[in-house]
Order: sequence, then structure tokens, then C-alpha cells
Amino acid sequence: MAGKTENQQKVAKSGSRKRDIVRQTAYLPKAVHEQLRQLAFEERLKMHDYLIEGLDLVFAKRGLSSIQELMSTRMDK
Amino acid sequence: MAGKTENQQKVAKSGSRKRDIVRQTAYLPKAVHEQLRQLAFEERLKMHDYLIEGLDLVFAKRGLSSIQELMSTRMDK
Repeated sequence: MAGKTENQQKVAKSGSRKRDIVRQTAYLPKAVHEQLRQLAFEERLKMHDYLIEGLDLVFAKRGLSSIQELMSTRMDK
Repeated sequence: MAGKTENQQKVAKSGSRKRDIVRQTAYLPKAVHEQLRQLAFEERLKMHDYLIEGLDLVFAKRGLSSIQELMSTRMDK
């Protein structure tokens, strides 16, 4: 709408989903990256999928909430 | 040395270790990032450590080389 401030437009543009995402960079030794790339190719997945799967395994190992569980309660926070 | 080309200087500057690192960004839902942040605080580790541990668990689950194994054979490649 014409009455929106620049800031309101930014919020509308980014949406609630985008604001709920935090970037975390992984620094992978080349050999690790290469094994991951190979795995992603073979399983037809994205390398990013394995970072997420890995975190889920880290959480499971410690008896913490799974990513799916965290996502389903996301709206309550 | 004065005789080095610009490219040679770049290689010397970055060093072999730095060139062997590949960045991979993880996009974490806020709730996942928050649980990770909490875990890192409690275990006095860095959030990045869990991305690496997670990849290692992903590899182990599939019977692939561990990160330590990949690193020890790094110089042979």
C-alpha cells in the first residue's frame, strides 16, 4: 500500500520465514567437502541436506528435540 | 621477492591450508539455531563444532571415512 514506510515494506518483502533463518558457515577441509559432494551426487541430495541431517544426529545423540519437533513448535515461541 | 608475479604472491599469501578449506553455509531455522546455541553454551564448544560432528555422524551412518581418516590421508591426494 502507498502508506507503508520503507521499513514496513522491507518486513513485508522478507516475510516471517526468511527472518526465522540464521546462517551458519561450515569450514570444511577439502577432503571432507569432496566426500560430501560425492555422497550428495550418489544420493541425489544437496550437500546442505547433510549439514541438517548431521545436526539432527547431534541432537538425537544428546536426547534433545529433533529438528522436526523444533519446527512443529516454532509458532508457539 | 621482487621477481614474483601477482599470482604467485596470492598463492604465497593464502597458503596451502587456507586453499584446502571450502565454505558451506547452513541455513538454520531459528529454533534449531537456538537449540544449537544453547548446546554450545552448555558444552563450552562452538556451534561450528557441531556441524563438523554432525557430518562425521552422517559419514559413520553410511560406513564412509571419518573426518579424522580423511584428514590423515589428505596429503596423499
